[in-house]
Amino acid sequence: MAYVKWSLDTLEKFCADVFETFGFSDEESRKINDVLLTADLYGIESHGMQRMVRYHKGIEKGQIHLDAKPEVVFETPVSAVVDGHSGMGQLIGIFAMNKAIEKAESAGIGIVSVRNSNHYGIAGYYAQMASKRGLIGLSCTNSEAIMVPTFGREAMIGTNPIAIAAPAEPYPFLFDASTSVVTRGKLEMYNKMGKPLPEGWALDETGAPSTEAPRVLANIVGKKGGGIMPLGGSTEELGSHKGYGNGLIAELFSSILSLGVTSDQCCTFPDKTGICHGFAAINPAAFGDADAIRDHFSEYLRKLRESQKAEGAERIYTHGEKEIFAEADRRENGIPVNDGTMIELKNLCDYLNLEFAAYFPGYELPEDFAGFAGNY
Amino acid sequence: MAYVKWSLDTLEKFCADVFETFGFSDEESRKINDVLLTADLYGIESHGMQRMVRYHKGIEKGQIHLDAKPEVVFETPVSAVVDGHSGMGQLIGIFAMNKAIEKAESAGIGIVSVRNSNHYGIAGYYAQMASKRGLIGLSCTNSEAIMVPTFGREAMIGTNPIAIAAPAEPYPFLFDASTSVVTRGKLEMYNKMGKPLPEGWALDETGAPSTEAPRVLANIVGKKGGGIMPLGGSTEELGSHKGYGNGLIAELFSSILSLGVTSDQCCTFPDKTGICHGFAAINPAAFGDADAIRDHFSEYLRKLRESQKAEGAERIYTHGEKEIFAEADRRENGIPVNDGTMIELKNLCDYLNLEFAAYFPGYELPEDFAGFAGNY
Repeated sequence: MAYVKWSLDTLEKFCADVFETFGFSDEESRKINDVLLTADLYGIESHGMQRMVRYHKGIEKGQIHLDAKPEVVFETPVSAVVDGHSGMGQLIGIFAMNKAIEKAESAGIGIVSVRNSNHYGIAGYYAQMASKRGLIGLSCTNSEAIMVPTFGREAMIGTNPIAIAAPAEPYPFLFDASTSVVTRGKLEMYNKMGKPLPEGWALDETGAPSTEAPRVLANIVGKKGGGIMPLGGSTEELGSHKGYGNGLIAELFSSILSLGVTSDQCCTFPDKTGICHGFAAINPAAFGDADAIRDHFSEYLRKLRESQKAEGAERIYTHGEKEIFAEADRRENGIPVNDGTMIELKNLCDYLNLEFAAYFPGYELPEDFAGFAGNY
Repeated sequence: MAYVKWSLDTLEKFCADVFETFGFSDEESRKINDVLLTADLYGIESHGMQRMVRYHKGIEKGQIHLDAKPEVVFETPVSAVVDGHSGMGQLIGIFAMNKAIEKAESAGIGIVSVRNSNHYGIAGYYAQMASKRGLIGLSCTNSEAIMVPTFGREAMIGTNPIAIAAPAEPYPFLFDASTSVVTRGKLEMYNKMGKPLPEGWALDETGAPSTEAPRVLANIVGKKGGGIMPLGGSTEELGSHKGYGNGLIAELFSSILSLGVTSDQCCTFPDKTGICHGFAAINPAAFGDADAIRDHFSEYLRKLRESQKAEGAERIYTHGEKEIFAEADRRENGIPVNDGTMIELKNLCDYLNLEFAAYFPGYELPEDFAGFAGNY
């Protein structure tokens, strides 16, 4: 698949117009775009422009309600439950994380659980909202069931990412990972390349390990059984029950505390997805000297990076570094967008009566784009 | 290795006498024993009677200080930092978790970070202290470095377990797992059986995967490099960076927030181990109707257990079930203790001038017990 690079400015302008045309305010549009384009800047291609089509379809189908406003339905000085009323996930996420941050700044800790939201983009964005203010931030979400519990054959849990960010020098710590071994996007990538999946990623409809991407993806779409393994694979020997348990932690803080829709039911309704999130912010000052805590963490992270490398390995990363490097590169050299996504953006322009060529001058759609029906 | 079964009463009596002979009060001794024997009842053999020798050696070497009392060195209505002053880990853990529980009961949430403790047994014990009171409980600890970061060859992180417990019916949820793919105890078990390690567990001194248990263990003891892989293995393909990141989350809440000793330095001091813990308790009532939240979680867990099984699989577990079943069996049929551990208990009796045969009547030490030098 070929890639074309666009400047951040180009993509920002395009996204702003798209979301304003959908009916979002300037401010709302800016918030949504910041989440989406941060993913692209960080090199998390699956969660940036490539997601536009899903938001487009969500709005078209009526699962994303344009004018919904998040509502606090329960609150204490350290906690809250937010009902998103099926609005745009990014707006609900930012609203809820800001609430957690306010509480952490006033009371030391804030935990906010959210029901009736939608796909909110990268979990790490929200965790980082806290770390940018000197707090520890946590963010997790459930999602459409695709992870199969240990010894099962039926997808019952989402990829359920958990992200945590904390202040550190010279890079903030940012760990953002699905609790499944990989996400669906990775399977789709192998499928597009016509390559067999690595061992240890997916299960077929009988619950047996499978490397056949087309079969696994068709089963997922048709809800015929199988799906993605938890982090740790499908047997207890490599810790399958641990990834499965981590997925349930994300569920607990999102769908359970908010009395929302659990992953097994997410995205099965005509008028909503029901996706739920969990957010927490923790003020290091509630544990003493926040600067000393940041320095102590920075020092440990430095020791990790400088520890002895495996033979043949070039460097040891700490979490969040790769994103920093990717962002620097993309700001300078542009953000790569693949042809499949460009076709989706063209379709989106047609739907909204926006002029594709005005945003992406000189870009020619591939001739054989019939195969790129988009990631639905 | 042969096993002999003893009743809970027998082991309780033995442990009580041991810890009282060491100089702990009745109450302290009861607390320590409850943590240890809960591990044995739950079938987590590595953390029960098998650990007695390490506590014995810790006290003998002066890393565990018998008369130390945990001290709150910083506190807010929702948080605290505790200095354990190198006392017995179980006593410090119970003290700190009780503090988190008090705060959750009064303010909704309590997070307590602990420095200068010692090995505290199973992480899940403390999480469950909260769930027994209707709260969500979290517990994590760092430990002597044995986990190698992704692309590394040097152990820099402990097995760093994270446990979470939450009220549910008919079984409470209890997820307690190391963030490394396995613990050192598993490697020792394979070593004793003379079996090669499963692929995906350990690294040799060059950072390459190894299935040679004796080599890996000798390297760990001699700090010559290598160690255990994070959950997710040693490559990013299966998510090594995720287990590595989870290990750092445990570190953040234990050694970082408390300004304590990070795993890379744990157990390198003559007069302390420096082990740190993190605890949290969250009151579901801070999110609305606690009963409704418990029922909602119970229902999801039931659906997970009743979801379709993989071909050949007998059942799908939710976390904490196996412990419930193990406890019922062990209360009825006794707790299995292996010969190696029995020899360690005999040595302990000799050290404390307790009469081994009075506690374990009829037990004959294996003739070839020279090989069982104990798990140091």
